[in-house]
Amino acid sequence: MPSLEKVSIIGSGNWGSAIAKIVGSNTIRHSDQFEATVRQWVFEEQVDGRNLTEIINQDHENVKYLKGIKLPENVVAVPDLVESCKDATLLVFVVPHQFLHGICEKMKGHLAPHARAISLIKGLEITADGTRLFSEEITRQLGIPCAALSGANIANEVALEKFCESTIGCENMEEGLVFKKLFDTPYFRINVIQDTVGVQLCGALKNVVAVGAGLSDGLGHGSNTKAAIIRLGLMEMRKFGKTFFGDAVQTETFFESCGAADLITTCNGGRNRKVAEAFAQTGKPIAQLEQELLNGQKLQGTLTAQEVNEFLVARNKVDEFPLFTTVYRIIYEGLSPEAITVEI
Amino acid sequence: MPSLEKVSIIGSGNWGSAIAKIVGSNTIRHSDQFEATVRQWVFEEQVDGRNLTEIINQDHENVKYLKGIKLPENVVAVPDLVESCKDATLLVFVVPHQFLHGICEKMKGHLAPHARAISLIKGLEITADGTRLFSEEITRQLGIPCAALSGANIANEVALEKFCESTIGCENMEEGLVFKKLFDTPYFRINVIQDTVGVQLCGALKNVVAVGAGLSDGLGHGSNTKAAIIRLGLMEMRKFGKTFFGDAVQTETFFESCGAADLITTCNGGRNRKVAEAFAQTGKPIAQLEQELLNGQKLQGTLTAQEVNEFLVARNKVDEFPLFTTVYRIIYEGLSPEAITVEI
Repeated sequence: MPSLEKVSIIGSGNWGSAIAKIVGSNTIRHSDQFEATVRQWVFEEQVDGRNLTEIINQDHENVKYLKGIKLPENVVAVPDLVESCKDATLLVFVVPHQFLHGICEKMKGHLAPHARAISLIKGLEITADGTRLFSEEITRQLGIPCAALSGANIANEVALEKFCESTIGCENMEEGLVFKKLFDTPYFRINVIQDTVGVQLCGALKNVVAVGAGLSDGLGHGSNTKAAIIRLGLMEMRKFGKTFFGDAVQTETFFESCGAADLITTCNGGRNRKVAEAFAQTGKPIAQLEQELLNGQKLQGTLTAQEVNEFLVARNKVDEFPLFTTVYRIIYEGLSPEAITVEI
Repeated sequence: MPSLEKVSIIGSGNWGSAIAKIVGSNTIRHSDQFEATVRQWVFEEQVDGRNLTEIINQDHENVKYLKGIKLPENVVAVPDLVESCKDATLLVFVVPHQFLHGICEKMKGHLAPHARAISLIKGLEITADGTRLFSEEITRQLGIPCAALSGANIANEVALEKFCESTIGCENMEEGLVFKKLFDTPYFRINVIQDTVGVQLCGALKNVVAVGAGLSDGLGHGSNTKAAIIRLGLMEMRKFGKTFFGDAVQTETFFESCGAADLITTCNGGRNRKVAEAFAQTGKPIAQLEQELLNGQKLQGTLTAQEVNEFLVARNKVDEFPLFTTVYRIIYEGLSPEAITVEI
């Protein structure tokens, strides 16, 4: 009998908690394949005078990041990073991207020999020098293969068991199917594809398109215009993938949940759309709107627009990506928001 | 010098009027290719004691179907069908589909020898026996080639010159580019593709998906779920095309305005979504909701769901189209609306 997979979840925010609920129920459901206990690394915080890990382990609820949702009792919060991942065979990364490097440094040497990882971290690093996917970063630092999961998955809706889909990108289909077993439920339906790059590209670039959609909303354009921006955005996302990653990126990926579906959700709701709408309506700088609307948190879409622009400038390709470029110029170069329907 | 194209628009409803505004300005803009005068067949009606054609020709406004929008003065309303299309070389069909057959009968023999047509009629005929596209019907009756135009194009938004896109499907690319010249403007951007079948399939099947999206809204599911239904619907639309029309239907078509974009618009607004939402909330029969919400007009999406189901039953294929089938069973066979997230 093959030995059971030992699962660790690295991260415990809103999305990490929703995913812990799914993973915890699936390790029990598939007890032939997974050890029941799921360790979850939780950054220790005090909540009403108690440790968050203690609250999770006693009350089975992450009261700080996913209030009101019961977690399975086999999900065990562990405050020590090394202890949380020691001898793990399957690692689920769901941490803010800026902490990833330091976390991997500490984890080195403590995993099982054949450990595999999956990244639920949205986005990728884009600079003038090039791109680095978070799955690549994990592989580089830990020397283990890494898949990616992304989809139209608002964490609170997933936690409430509202039906949705998600996409796993995994070059090795057999490993992808192990991860499918870990995440798939009747209300959280997983498709596995081999395009790990495309899955992660979509998760980053969709936010730039959502800024465009928000500008259109702010200008009072109707649903025809927004549908056109979403569609042109999807085409530019695909073109970005094909241009800079070649055959690694597949057309079918953009039909998956990580592609069209997540883009639709992000352009209809979400903070990128909302702040961009306010930008077009008020003309206030983005930094001020981040203060007013997001309690000072940084907006992802405008940052990505800036990074993408640097990347395109360095490759003399700005003209081939008119939507990404126009979003950048409106936000950072004072171009009129009206340009969103003219220049793209 | 080649002779100029003579354009006739057959139909003058809401969409026909919005399109007449575009076509009228384009025949002037491209005077090297088109005669300026655009004849428009207008079904004669009395409005405040005046003939509608007289109002259009004197006041340049279709006060009944597109109030508040000025039409170009070179658009000439003609109440007599034969007179409106005599010697026309380009025919734009934009009439309710139930009148198409009778209209073509009367037009026979009056067109220029090399006339070509384009259909803006949404939908297609689907019965247990098979399908018939309206472009095919026009070709069959009049013996002329026929293209199709469809996209995320709410008529009133187009009339207000809100930016959007549309798709022309035309097997002969050279003819397609003539039609592009007739319709393309900076705010109404045309892509020409060769998949005439797919363009029309999308225009019909999207309404079934919108019923599914409306059911989801009525059940209070969030945007994850709706995005999943839209995506699964797009995939089923594509599968329908590939299964029953083979290589005539192209994957790329579903990325066009007629595909993903029109589907998004229809699932976010529109009557199919709205009535289905009310159906899930109240359990009232569709016929009653049509009375209450649509002044007794028939809903397209439920009708198409029924026709598609007959078609699939006759081919023993219902199981391969779970979304279309589930929508049908919920509306017509008393299946619980909850099934929309379970059976698809």
